[in-house]
Amino acid sequence: MPIEIPEVVIERLPVYARALAALQARGLDVVSSQELGDQLGVTPAQIRKDLSYFGRFGKQGRGYNVNRLMEELRQILGLDRSWSMVLIGVGQLGHAILQYGGFGPQGFHVIEAFDANDGEVGKRIGPLEVRHVSELPELLRTRHVQIGIVAVPAAHAQEVINTLVEGGIKAILNYAPIAPQVPEDVHIRQIDPVLALQSMTYYLKSNETLAHHA
Amino acid sequence: MPIEIPEVVIERLPVYARALAALQARGLDVVSSQELGDQLGVTPAQIRKDLSYFGRFGKQGRGYNVNRLMEELRQILGLDRSWSMVLIGVGQLGHAILQYGGFGPQGFHVIEAFDANDGEVGKRIGPLEVRHVSELPELLRTRHVQIGIVAVPAAHAQEVINTLVEGGIKAILNYAPIAPQVPEDVHIRQIDPVLALQSMTYYLKSNETLAHHA
Repeated sequence: MPIEIPEVVIERLPVYARALAALQARGLDVVSSQELGDQLGVTPAQIRKDLSYFGRFGKQGRGYNVNRLMEELRQILGLDRSWSMVLIGVGQLGHAILQYGGFGPQGFHVIEAFDANDGEVGKRIGPLEVRHVSELPELLRTRHVQIGIVAVPAAHAQEVINTLVEGGIKAILNYAPIAPQVPEDVHIRQIDPVLALQSMTYYLKSNETLAHHA
Repeated sequence: MPIEIPEVVIERLPVYARALAALQARGLDVVSSQELGDQLGVTPAQIRKDLSYFGRFGKQGRGYNVNRLMEELRQILGLDRSWSMVLIGVGQLGHAILQYGGFGPQGFHVIEAFDANDGEVGKRIGPLEVRHVSELPELLRTRHVQIGIVAVPAAHAQEVINTLVEGGIKAILNYAPIAPQVPEDVHIRQIDPVLALQSMTYYLKSNETLAHHA
């Protein structure tokens, strides 16, 4: 497998996998890059190019075998595995993350939750007992954890991210509204609804005239 | 202002604005594209290119005036305005969205919340009383709403999105794990932590050997 696959391509593969899973559920055997593109709002050319990095799927004019492509993507992305995560920050957002039903079925499991607030430490949330964040480094040394989820206030997020990085974590999901600094070999994704909203208001603004709020 | 600015550029502008706000808070007057790039993990060339679409900022070798650039970005993105949103879906996730403290200070306000579950309708959440989703079209006709937030289960998300689109909404923030279909003039952003996680496991997988879970 080639090693220099652009990160934007890697980021699109899970989207393809999800669309294929939906096609599988509908019993479809074959899908064209055109059909897949229509469904996802990307061009067929981009789908063909993205998948060509893995050098196995393209059959000109015949479409993709849904089951085979899905199986390949599962292998490539590690979708058939189980991943251990720690959550730091069990406020409102952290609670919602712990109770979110979408992680488990996809193999993502929070095995420990941490908070800096003594009032939260020791509380039970489902199967977990909240631990003090000062215990995080020790946990990272002793347990096999692959992913960190950061749900602390912005002011503390970089510090928590540093602790995760020092503990050897290479994949971080960050909900705090900051531009985090991580070494090159650490992957980080932002979940940031405000940035998403702000990237749409440009278009709304072009459409309307509204009173300014200074 | 040129009208054909790539959407990827528009999506990066709020990130620049947030970084500039942090620099403002630290009292910095001038920032180079190099410094801004280092902080955000993008190349200085990309920052210069992105901002050049708006044709006003670049001064070769002198850096950007932080306050002036921030003011321009606020204007371009409409960050100085107030935006009215409706939320559909008040389960665990919807509650977390309503109680999220990050929207209001940025001018984003949920003015009504809807749910399809009769057991939720009529409940008060903060200043809002949950309304039945069947009342959504009427609300969109009578109130000035600019943004829809979709936090319903995946199976109902496209239907809710269709209702928003039919009601004239041009900007949608979707938390449901689907690949939604919208007309070209409607902007939609996904908040999707599972996709974000799956786009990192590719790299974790390359680093380790793990037991497969079939």
